[in-house]
Amino acid sequence: MPDAADLDAADPLAGFRYEFFHDASEPNLIYLDGNSLGRMPRRAADLAADLVNDQWGGRLIRGWNEGWFDLPNRVGDRLAGLVGASAGEVMLADSTSVCLYKAAAAAVAARPGRTRIITDDLNFPSDVQVLRAVARAAGPDHEVVVLGSDGVHGPDELLADAIDDTTALVSLSHVAYRSGWCWDLDAVTALAHQAGALVLWDLCHSVGAVPIDLNAVGVDLAVGCTYKYLNGGPGSPAFLFVSSGLPDLVNPIDGWYGSDDPMAFEFDAERAPGVNRFMTGSPPVVSTALVEPGVDLLLEAGMDRVRDKSVALSERFITLVDARLVPLGFEVRSPRDHQRRGSHVSLFHPDAQAVGQALIHEESVIPDFRPPDLLRFGFAPLYTSFSDVDEAVSRTVRVVEGGGVDRWRGPVA
Amino acid sequence: MPDAADLDAADPLAGFRYEFFHDASEPNLIYLDGNSLGRMPRRAADLAADLVNDQWGGRLIRGWNEGWFDLPNRVGDRLAGLVGASAGEVMLADSTSVCLYKAAAAAVAARPGRTRIITDDLNFPSDVQVLRAVARAAGPDHEVVVLGSDGVHGPDELLADAIDDTTALVSLSHVAYRSGWCWDLDAVTALAHQAGALVLWDLCHSVGAVPIDLNAVGVDLAVGCTYKYLNGGPGSPAFLFVSSGLPDLVNPIDGWYGSDDPMAFEFDAERAPGVNRFMTGSPPVVSTALVEPGVDLLLEAGMDRVRDKSVALSERFITLVDARLVPLGFEVRSPRDHQRRGSHVSLFHPDAQAVGQALIHEESVIPDFRPPDLLRFGFAPLYTSFSDVDEAVSRTVRVVEGGGVDRWRGPVA
Repeated sequence: MPDAADLDAADPLAGFRYEFFHDASEPNLIYLDGNSLGRMPRRAADLAADLVNDQWGGRLIRGWNEGWFDLPNRVGDRLAGLVGASAGEVMLADSTSVCLYKAAAAAVAARPGRTRIITDDLNFPSDVQVLRAVARAAGPDHEVVVLGSDGVHGPDELLADAIDDTTALVSLSHVAYRSGWCWDLDAVTALAHQAGALVLWDLCHSVGAVPIDLNAVGVDLAVGCTYKYLNGGPGSPAFLFVSSGLPDLVNPIDGWYGSDDPMAFEFDAERAPGVNRFMTGSPPVVSTALVEPGVDLLLEAGMDRVRDKSVALSERFITLVDARLVPLGFEVRSPRDHQRRGSHVSLFHPDAQAVGQALIHEESVIPDFRPPDLLRFGFAPLYTSFSDVDEAVSRTVRVVEGGGVDRWRGPVA
Repeated sequence: MPDAADLDAADPLAGFRYEFFHDASEPNLIYLDGNSLGRMPRRAADLAADLVNDQWGGRLIRGWNEGWFDLPNRVGDRLAGLVGASAGEVMLADSTSVCLYKAAAAAVAARPGRTRIITDDLNFPSDVQVLRAVARAAGPDHEVVVLGSDGVHGPDELLADAIDDTTALVSLSHVAYRSGWCWDLDAVTALAHQAGALVLWDLCHSVGAVPIDLNAVGVDLAVGCTYKYLNGGPGSPAFLFVSSGLPDLVNPIDGWYGSDDPMAFEFDAERAPGVNRFMTGSPPVVSTALVEPGVDLLLEAGMDRVRDKSVALSERFITLVDARLVPLGFEVRSPRDHQRRGSHVSLFHPDAQAVGQALIHEESVIPDFRPPDLLRFGFAPLYTSFSDVDEAVSRTVRVVEGGGVDRWRGPVA
């Protein structure tokens, strides 16, 4: 295995690390939770000051005519470049779950007579809850089928069997939040389309980490959050993609911002064309604008280079885990095939929560814990080094061999 | 009429003006659009820097356990103090329109067999669009009845006639966005309850300007925005009030944040008690937190003092308009009875848009224009002085007498 320092020296993305804020008071922090909340781009700090002091404070209502009004589209158009979408197909609004509700309800309404929504148990719980709410609203004959998996790999054979002419919609997380399983976007989309169903992808855990080419694949609908690998800030607004090739869908939550001319203030307004009809209320300006710096950094880095480094980081991590952590009771609970894996790796440990607490409080390593027994280690390629990977594994060894598990077992403070 | 300078000198709220940012490069600006976007509290600038640099940048994912998770409730509990609600009855989430959708759909579902939603044509267009979307989802027998008004005053006799045992929900804007009409919250709520219907108030144009006592009146549900008189920032999240006296309602957009324990990541999670079940996705942390400073300022000022000053400002404005602007072709298009009026006054002028543009660009007065022929002048009591009122009227006279209407007629740049 090559030396981490050599890999870092040769890393074409190494310079991006300095585009992100690193707190000088925690120089040894190794942050491996960018799959949950990405680091802050330095440009975001400057932008936040401008947005609040100069735009809100100084320009007041005039800000709406000086850039705020089209902000969800402007940032959406930038984001489109990361996911293979065209200008006008992506906008920012609401939370991922609300966007998922709108898109799923619209898709089901566009497939009358088809009563099933297909998903799997690797999906994020909120997605399943939302899909069930959509089925409930669609009527008593509608149901959500949650395909069972082994907890790590997507149930691809079950999926192929489940999709038929009763299927209105197939909705899955492109990359699963726990195991990191990465669905074959192209193959699943084709399966759904062969059966006459629509597809709605949740890109939360893949966007900014895995190359995505929505239009090349022919994806109908997609949603995703902007606060993980896109580094948009805590709870930043979600994005929604609606293929321009789809016939017009109906937003189930019509509101003024989704009408053709909101500022006409008409009750019987025409719906906006394309993705904009899925807007409902006014966008959160500050949170929306703060998404742009992180998206720009990924566009500058290029998704192919991002993906190459992501695979190299996670492959190295798994190799080190096999050698050093499996003997200590850890198990890899992510797909071994990097083509079927996103940018985080999940490890089982019977005392996963205690290990995580010890890592955070004793060793300045931040992974995250998913109950009951998983630790996720996320490798955001723009600011994670190969040395970080080695060091994180070494500190995990130190925690376990040094009794950290016992010190941190029990309720979390 | 007393001298404006004397009133300002005696104004117990005068000092609050300095709690808000005023751009030194526009010392003559008279901002009368706080009913659309409130000014920035100085505390918000400091808080934004803390949120972005220290919390997001420095604390990273740990921020969720250090205050972000309960932020929608914490700010909601503060806001409850402005509207006569109890702790645990108010939370911040989504946009006003999305909150309205959730609350209205839940209310209609709680009144099976009743097929009508009653509103009026003074309501904000997005509200009517949302209510129609709710009716559409509820089934083909459901409808929204939009009562016609004279454009200024609420159609109270029609309302009394319309509410009957087919009424599932009465949903109105407490203060109308155009005319400033202020419904009698108590009387309308009582009317709805007598007929067995639920009430859902939109408080966008009243919260922070008009005293509201939701629990004393027995209101079931309410929503509102936080960026007008609450000064929460552009597009800041909405709030939702659910009376703790209501039986459990069902959020039509169930998501993880509305479950009893989101961090358990369960598909079959119990719904959270109370208002929290109406949450869906993760809250926009930065935008949510920035709502608190403006709410705190209003709590410090006290809503009774705010209302007293609001009435004094708008009464003075109307008196001056009658004397100086009516002879120039303006008409007051707001209720004359201050008990039935919020904190803004609408003026008709055949060239309202040109007058507005001239005021903004030649006279540093910012009202807002509502097509086709209204200018709204909003009096946010915390930062508007009596001298501002006099000066705004004088500058409007100057615009009209000085030919500003002709200079600014035509398409808006």
